[in-house]
Amino acid sequence: MPDIDLYTMGQRARKAGRQLALLSSEVRDGTLREIARRLEGAGDALWQANRADIEEARAAGLTPALLDRSTLNPNRLAAMVQGCRDVAALPDPLGEVFDGKTLPNGLRIAKKRVPLGVLGVFFEARPNVTVDIGALAIKTGNAVIMRGGKECLRTNIVLVDLVRAACEACGVPVDAVQLITSTDRALVLEMLTMDDAIDLLIPRGGHGLQGLVKQHATMPVVYGGIGVCHLYVDESADLERAIPVINNAKTQAPSVCNALDTVLVHRAVAEAFLPAMVADLQACGVKILADEASLRVLEGADGLMAELLEPAGPDAYGTEFLGLTLSTRVVDSLDEAIAHIAQYSTNHSDGILTNTYAHAVRFVNEVDSAAVFVNASTRFNDGGQFGLGAEVAISTQKLHARGPMGPRELTTYKWIVEGDWHVRA
Amino acid sequence: MPDIDLYTMGQRARKAGRQLALLSSEVRDGTLREIARRLEGAGDALWQANRADIEEARAAGLTPALLDRSTLNPNRLAAMVQGCRDVAALPDPLGEVFDGKTLPNGLRIAKKRVPLGVLGVFFEARPNVTVDIGALAIKTGNAVIMRGGKECLRTNIVLVDLVRAACEACGVPVDAVQLITSTDRALVLEMLTMDDAIDLLIPRGGHGLQGLVKQHATMPVVYGGIGVCHLYVDESADLERAIPVINNAKTQAPSVCNALDTVLVHRAVAEAFLPAMVADLQACGVKILADEASLRVLEGADGLMAELLEPAGPDAYGTEFLGLTLSTRVVDSLDEAIAHIAQYSTNHSDGILTNTYAHAVRFVNEVDSAAVFVNASTRFNDGGQFGLGAEVAISTQKLHARGPMGPRELTTYKWIVEGDWHVRA
Repeated sequence: MPDIDLYTMGQRARKAGRQLALLSSEVRDGTLREIARRLEGAGDALWQANRADIEEARAAGLTPALLDRSTLNPNRLAAMVQGCRDVAALPDPLGEVFDGKTLPNGLRIAKKRVPLGVLGVFFEARPNVTVDIGALAIKTGNAVIMRGGKECLRTNIVLVDLVRAACEACGVPVDAVQLITSTDRALVLEMLTMDDAIDLLIPRGGHGLQGLVKQHATMPVVYGGIGVCHLYVDESADLERAIPVINNAKTQAPSVCNALDTVLVHRAVAEAFLPAMVADLQACGVKILADEASLRVLEGADGLMAELLEPAGPDAYGTEFLGLTLSTRVVDSLDEAIAHIAQYSTNHSDGILTNTYAHAVRFVNEVDSAAVFVNASTRFNDGGQFGLGAEVAISTQKLHARGPMGPRELTTYKWIVEGDWHVRA
Repeated sequence: MPDIDLYTMGQRARKAGRQLALLSSEVRDGTLREIARRLEGAGDALWQANRADIEEARAAGLTPALLDRSTLNPNRLAAMVQGCRDVAALPDPLGEVFDGKTLPNGLRIAKKRVPLGVLGVFFEARPNVTVDIGALAIKTGNAVIMRGGKECLRTNIVLVDLVRAACEACGVPVDAVQLITSTDRALVLEMLTMDDAIDLLIPRGGHGLQGLVKQHATMPVVYGGIGVCHLYVDESADLERAIPVINNAKTQAPSVCNALDTVLVHRAVAEAFLPAMVADLQACGVKILADEASLRVLEGADGLMAELLEPAGPDAYGTEFLGLTLSTRVVDSLDEAIAHIAQYSTNHSDGILTNTYAHAVRFVNEVDSAAVFVNASTRFNDGGQFGLGAEVAISTQKLHARGPMGPRELTTYKWIVEGDWHVRA
């Protein structure tokens, strides 16, 4: 077990962050390109570390899916290289001056966009995340302290060493990017109270991690990634075109947070729509959890697979399935759909499929989610899709950033006030 | 002791907030004007409640300063009335649509400014705060659950009843404004874990309250109001003009968070500047805590009051004095001044007094405070002064809002995504 002194790591991060914040985007972007070059030339140390991680994880009985996510290969390395170059090519979020004005007394005030300072990031598996987060931190002038999953610890150590060596070569303080090289859980708890050292904590993980953070963290946190997502099929929806939208929202990437969990269908179109929708989804392997009204419609329909159709139990609504399961419910009105969403949504991604203008307007106004959709798949709630360049997380809280967090969302501002020896009257 | 069911209050606030968010600014601003009218006509119930509060507080041994703050009088009532009308006259922060664009695939996306939802606010004494917060909540479409100090409980109950009656008369759900009518401390702890019901908590109070919130709150919090503020007198400062700026920053309102706490003076001007500055401040009753180098300069000077001059002890730096005390320190360079501020500032309001352009630029870039000043009094860090209209708090954290929080800082945004049955490729 390495001897980890989190307090010292925090002090170093604070100091490195102050220096990094003053470097030009030329230096910061140059460092990202240097990381890309060094990744391209990464030698045996990286592959050996990853093989050792995978062997240990397999021996520990990790699921095949997690083993796959943790495994490096040349394609994945190439994607990491490209990721660094893409982030380097993004516009610099820092230095923007905005809301500037001259007050009646002549005082000149403006906000200037600056880094947050020090980020703390928890994440699981996938070594590409390690490099992504390091690159985004350097891009945005923030120091970062990371803690990755234990499945990739050896791999992450090699990757962070490589990032730090690139920093050193480019004049960026190496302590801008630090990895906690132990997976001792006590360190997580200690980190959660380091509010003097960490300006923003981003816990990328499931309910367990988020609950722990909620209970113990003393610094600002942006939670993200938990999406119980809904689409409401209104009476006037174009039923034929609704099916591919729902299929896309459910099956294009079933394990991610913006994947669809529940379809609400207006009673007037339930009979015309549900059997066709379910047949289409079952053909992709989706299991349907149907409420009583849906079930009545579906049980009389031809060509459905009984083994992929179940009555909706108590957990059918408000559950993030992260897989090929979808719940359905028949509603009597737009109001009932909005009320269902208010009750069960995690306010991540919810949408309406309709051709009634007034219904689209009401849905958009009344549904309080990070992204509200009209006639589009929930899968679009994504930093890349929204053109933000890169994404740290999809925030489901309301403070600071909502929905996809790109580089700009890793910044804050300070007020700059310039006077001519002004005093307040 | 009233029987308080915080859970139900939270549910009602959530529901009222959803309704309030959909009301036009005509209705919301009309409600504020109705509150103003009803305050103007407030009868004996209000005065009796306040007299009872003050009698009890006096019997409990409250300090004269707190007794004064808690006492209503016709002037203060008139100011509350005017405050409501002023907030009503501010532009509506809601509904703004921004960052809108059409993506290459034709999807139309934009952010729309919406209320946060439900605010939780803790505050002490001063009944005007009760009305201010209620008015700002209604203005910004947020429901609010308030807990005021026990000194004003009866007064606050009458005021909140009045606000709720105005809401009812104007079609605003009354549960948009709720007061916790008990000062039982257990209720504070319970409220701190109501993250399902409260979107943003604003604890207006001292270190004790903030520490409690930091340890226990599970929802987003904006801390504010603690300012250890610095001015650095550079070698090239206009020494004559620096004195009134420092005097203003220290004495114009010594008990508030943007009041000056520490003056750093460049060694080259210490002898020319410190005696004159201290004489000017002592004439206003300010006690000086001087470091050794300052003391050497000051002890040789004529006309200073020895009883208002002490050696700086261990708490001279990093303390928010909230009164007529100021610490001084002689530094050798701009770097030393910046390092002192990095170590001791609460990142609220810090400034440089200089005529050297390069030093102003470096100070502004390197000092990481909510507001950074050049040749101006720290007292300007204020929502009213900055033209934000009204102020909920001055945030000293970096997430969401930094410095003065006006009505806009009580809002968030949601992404609205409109498609033509778009699916993600």
